[in-house]
Amino acid sequence: MERTCGNGTLRLEDVGREVTLIGWVAKRRNLGSLAFIDLRDRSGVVQVTFDETIADQVKDVRSEYILQVTGTVVKRQAANPKMATGEIEVLAKNVVIVNSAETPPIEITDDSSTNEDTRLKYRYLDLRRPVLQKNMILRHKVCMIARKVLDEKGFIEIETPILARSTPEGARDYLVPSRIYNGKFWALPQSPQIYKQLLMISGMEKYFQIARCFRDEDLRADRQPEFTQIDIEMSFGDENTVFSVVEDLMKAIFRETIGYELEDTFVRLPWSECMRLYGTDKPDLRFGNTIEDLSDIFAETGFQAFRTVLDNGGMIGCLRFADAADKYSRKGLDKLQDFVKHGFRAKALAYLKMEKGELTGSVAKPLSETEKAAIIEKLSLTDNDLVLIIADQAKIAESGLGALRVRLGHELGLIPENVYKFLWVTDFPMFEYSEEENRWMAAHHPFTAPKEEDVERLFSDPGSVSSRAYDLVLNGYELLSGSIRIHDQDLQEKVFEAIGLTMEKARERFGFFLDAFRYGTPPHGGVGIGLERLVMVLAGTDNIRDVVAFPTTNSSLDLMSDAPNVVDKAQLDILGIEISNKDKD
Amino acid sequence: MERTCGNGTLRLEDVGREVTLIGWVAKRRNLGSLAFIDLRDRSGVVQVTFDETIADQVKDVRSEYILQVTGTVVKRQAANPKMATGEIEVLAKNVVIVNSAETPPIEITDDSSTNEDTRLKYRYLDLRRPVLQKNMILRHKVCMIARKVLDEKGFIEIETPILARSTPEGARDYLVPSRIYNGKFWALPQSPQIYKQLLMISGMEKYFQIARCFRDEDLRADRQPEFTQIDIEMSFGDENTVFSVVEDLMKAIFRETIGYELEDTFVRLPWSECMRLYGTDKPDLRFGNTIEDLSDIFAETGFQAFRTVLDNGGMIGCLRFADAADKYSRKGLDKLQDFVKHGFRAKALAYLKMEKGELTGSVAKPLSETEKAAIIEKLSLTDNDLVLIIADQAKIAESGLGALRVRLGHELGLIPENVYKFLWVTDFPMFEYSEEENRWMAAHHPFTAPKEEDVERLFSDPGSVSSRAYDLVLNGYELLSGSIRIHDQDLQEKVFEAIGLTMEKARERFGFFLDAFRYGTPPHGGVGIGLERLVMVLAGTDNIRDVVAFPTTNSSLDLMSDAPNVVDKAQLDILGIEISNKDKD
Repeated sequence: MERTCGNGTLRLEDVGREVTLIGWVAKRRNLGSLAFIDLRDRSGVVQVTFDETIADQVKDVRSEYILQVTGTVVKRQAANPKMATGEIEVLAKNVVIVNSAETPPIEITDDSSTNEDTRLKYRYLDLRRPVLQKNMILRHKVCMIARKVLDEKGFIEIETPILARSTPEGARDYLVPSRIYNGKFWALPQSPQIYKQLLMISGMEKYFQIARCFRDEDLRADRQPEFTQIDIEMSFGDENTVFSVVEDLMKAIFRETIGYELEDTFVRLPWSECMRLYGTDKPDLRFGNTIEDLSDIFAETGFQAFRTVLDNGGMIGCLRFADAADKYSRKGLDKLQDFVKHGFRAKALAYLKMEKGELTGSVAKPLSETEKAAIIEKLSLTDNDLVLIIADQAKIAESGLGALRVRLGHELGLIPENVYKFLWVTDFPMFEYSEEENRWMAAHHPFTAPKEEDVERLFSDPGSVSSRAYDLVLNGYELLSGSIRIHDQDLQEKVFEAIGLTMEKARERFGFFLDAFRYGTPPHGGVGIGLERLVMVLAGTDNIRDVVAFPTTNSSLDLMSDAPNVVDKAQLDILGIEISNKDKD
Repeated sequence: MERTCGNGTLRLEDVGREVTLIGWVAKRRNLGSLAFIDLRDRSGVVQVTFDETIADQVKDVRSEYILQVTGTVVKRQAANPKMATGEIEVLAKNVVIVNSAETPPIEITDDSSTNEDTRLKYRYLDLRRPVLQKNMILRHKVCMIARKVLDEKGFIEIETPILARSTPEGARDYLVPSRIYNGKFWALPQSPQIYKQLLMISGMEKYFQIARCFRDEDLRADRQPEFTQIDIEMSFGDENTVFSVVEDLMKAIFRETIGYELEDTFVRLPWSECMRLYGTDKPDLRFGNTIEDLSDIFAETGFQAFRTVLDNGGMIGCLRFADAADKYSRKGLDKLQDFVKHGFRAKALAYLKMEKGELTGSVAKPLSETEKAAIIEKLSLTDNDLVLIIADQAKIAESGLGALRVRLGHELGLIPENVYKFLWVTDFPMFEYSEEENRWMAAHHPFTAPKEEDVERLFSDPGSVSSRAYDLVLNGYELLSGSIRIHDQDLQEKVFEAIGLTMEKARERFGFFLDAFRYGTPPHGGVGIGLERLVMVLAGTDNIRDVVAFPTTNSSLDLMSDAPNVVDKAQLDILGIEISNKDKD
């Protein structure tokens, strides 16, 4: 059953060739005594024509039958420009029905209107859709390129356990009861974090793994209970070493999958500056319109609303959108105000429009001429420019303006397609204060190194300590996060202390890991790259299920195999566990 | 902290080079005012000499400290032939103590006598041993080569779920309680079997995955609770297609890791012939000494013991070992007899020795001169040859002789080292009769296709049905197993029926999988290659823990992280499960 080529590969230059094809019937039509069948395989679709001498042999053939066809490639009388193979067709001489098919329960086309749940139930049929096949191949390619690049740089892939011990990260663990040790559990790893650091301690120097990770969270649209991470760790380097590896990796992936050349060196911004300019630590750098601080202009203002904000240590922040004033009516601006009020707790949204050389708008009246002139100069305003202003606590003003920036970026079409802008965000805060737990918590994870010059403030002013954590942001998405780790046992103990973890508790949770630091730990750091997110960006989809072969729903159900599911009581007895009724709690 | 090269890479031609090295102190010695330090990194070890101008800076340095050294490569006065770098040393000009180390709790040398449990507890230190580092790199290489070969052949790697539904295979499943769906469970896959067949149904055509698999078994020495499989499946081919892919894969792996050229085409033997010649379905083909059947010679024998065996349908089987008679005394032969009696339920082991042209030994007397002459002729016996005979039911005689063959192969040094002999065993029995369950069971798994010509005997004579399952055996180890699968729903239902599975039960267990067969299933087949076993063979080790980064003990314990372990009751409450006391059963 040897085929000579892929169905989707045939072109005009193949005319005259005798070919043997195999594939699924995507569509059939009859025209008098002729039958036309679109035959689909992984490479694409080609039209096969059965003339009167042979059409009878395919008279019962319907959608999704599998055929093997031998025939000659001929030029089509009327080309079909919508098909890659549209200039030719194959005139069948011989046909074998390899297998028959019942009518499929879902439509197998990329523009299928079948709802997603039904398609997930019949995922094995939905995966026949060309776009999903393309995405699976893309994902495979990304992994192949990543492995090639990292292997060439001397990294070795090492598999770390999936049956592991509970790790002290943020999310809930999936637990696996041990049959042999009644009452004890394995945990599925949220990431290989501890293992990869142990591998640095064990002298592996450069490790990577395309690793399965598990988080028992209430899912969001772009999460799955299990996901994959390109996990990298290296010894004896610093941020520059890590960044350079990741940049080379990204450049190779973008070049070899979508033919896109990334900038040679990615932009870097310390977290505080990133927040100041973009109001978010995941800014989309495909367009400008950064946040401007007008506070200086209003230092002596008589406008009471601004006055109060500044007196309370707040800021007068704004965004300028060129040539956009006429695109936002009063009603449109009210919507924007609702957006920042409800989404970001801003007290109000003020605006100014530049019209015929003059500023109009909600705060045009109370501002002095000097102030208005200063604004026009600072923002280089010209006619029809729009200025959106939030006067509030800096945190609120920045996050509100950051969100407005993205919203107007979309509404005004400021974001170019097919452009990829990377950004390293560095110097994250080391700790976040948890009002709930009434203590400082590690913002990244407790193995992240603080910046050396900030170590002395670990206890006196934890909120001011920056860490050596970094994120790589792509077009407004967090693509990876990572850090330089602590490699000194004393410092590690201090950091635990700073987040209120006693040595006793720390030892109980990961004593073996702390022990490991004693015996010659190299400086090390690394990253974990979200594979699904990366492939989503490359595939141009917002649906994580488009890049996962067998995904779950947002409510964590595998509709195809109907998992999770009940098991026999005997299985539970062997494991020594019982189901308790949660409802009684 | 940029190093210029790996410590283990330096050679005589580097003399005069100024280098910067980083590594762990493997050993230090003092000689007067000089200090000699063996500095180890992933690439190997080099001796660094600190003269009186700098020795003081390393006076506190002990084993496993990390040093960064800049110095000049010089020729050693007396070369050390045991070290790859033994012809040179590095004269230190500058040294930085990167990190200190406490005295490690285990000896970090390949000839360490520390017991394995202690080494497993400090696995992160044991992994510093050069041989384990080499094995991890070898494993990485095998995977890289496998991916390259398969990618070039058009296979795409697709990740299948680890949170899955219980599959109907032999071993026990690891279960994962669902937090969201109280009383329901995920199961960790014993293999991606169902998923990969679904991927064929979904038109992926050529799939592979280096996949983690899980079996909750009582472990044997060469098993781990989780293991890795090079999992391959392809559509539209037959056994030849599968074999050719695997043979190319093996050839590339052996060539590119250990520089060994495998035979162009691997030997194939049907299972029944394999059993007849070797008494096992995992024969070691590195040496001959196959089983000979002497039954014909004794068709008319007067020797009562043989007579009875033949009358009861048994066989007189034997092995011939050239020039080995003097190596087995009466006592040695008694040991062999005990071995086949206790291990294989043989009633006795008879022997003959060729001495001065005559047969002597335990059955020399009762045999007629004609019979003895026939034996000498059939086996081409010459002086000092040893013949071991088991007269018994064929199954017992074959398995006993098969085991003796391997034992004497080792004892007589008949098995060449560094030789790799592959064998495809084909045409396995489709079913095995389970006395325990009083029914026929699938010998491979229930998705394996029967041989076409045997389908008509599925119900009339299931014991005579051969399957399209195959194993690849290497030097006596099963390296992989696989099969051509059923791709026809009717046939699948018949096979279920033949193993006593009602359609109702079959539907309950994997209805979604049966449904999938309706919509155009291509002929398909594949294999699952045991990665650990393959790497073990290439690394020349019998201990699976030598090729797994973080293994468990044989009793399924991770001694390093002390997993599995207890978890908080709150975690169990969230999952809606309780621990039941198994002892009460």
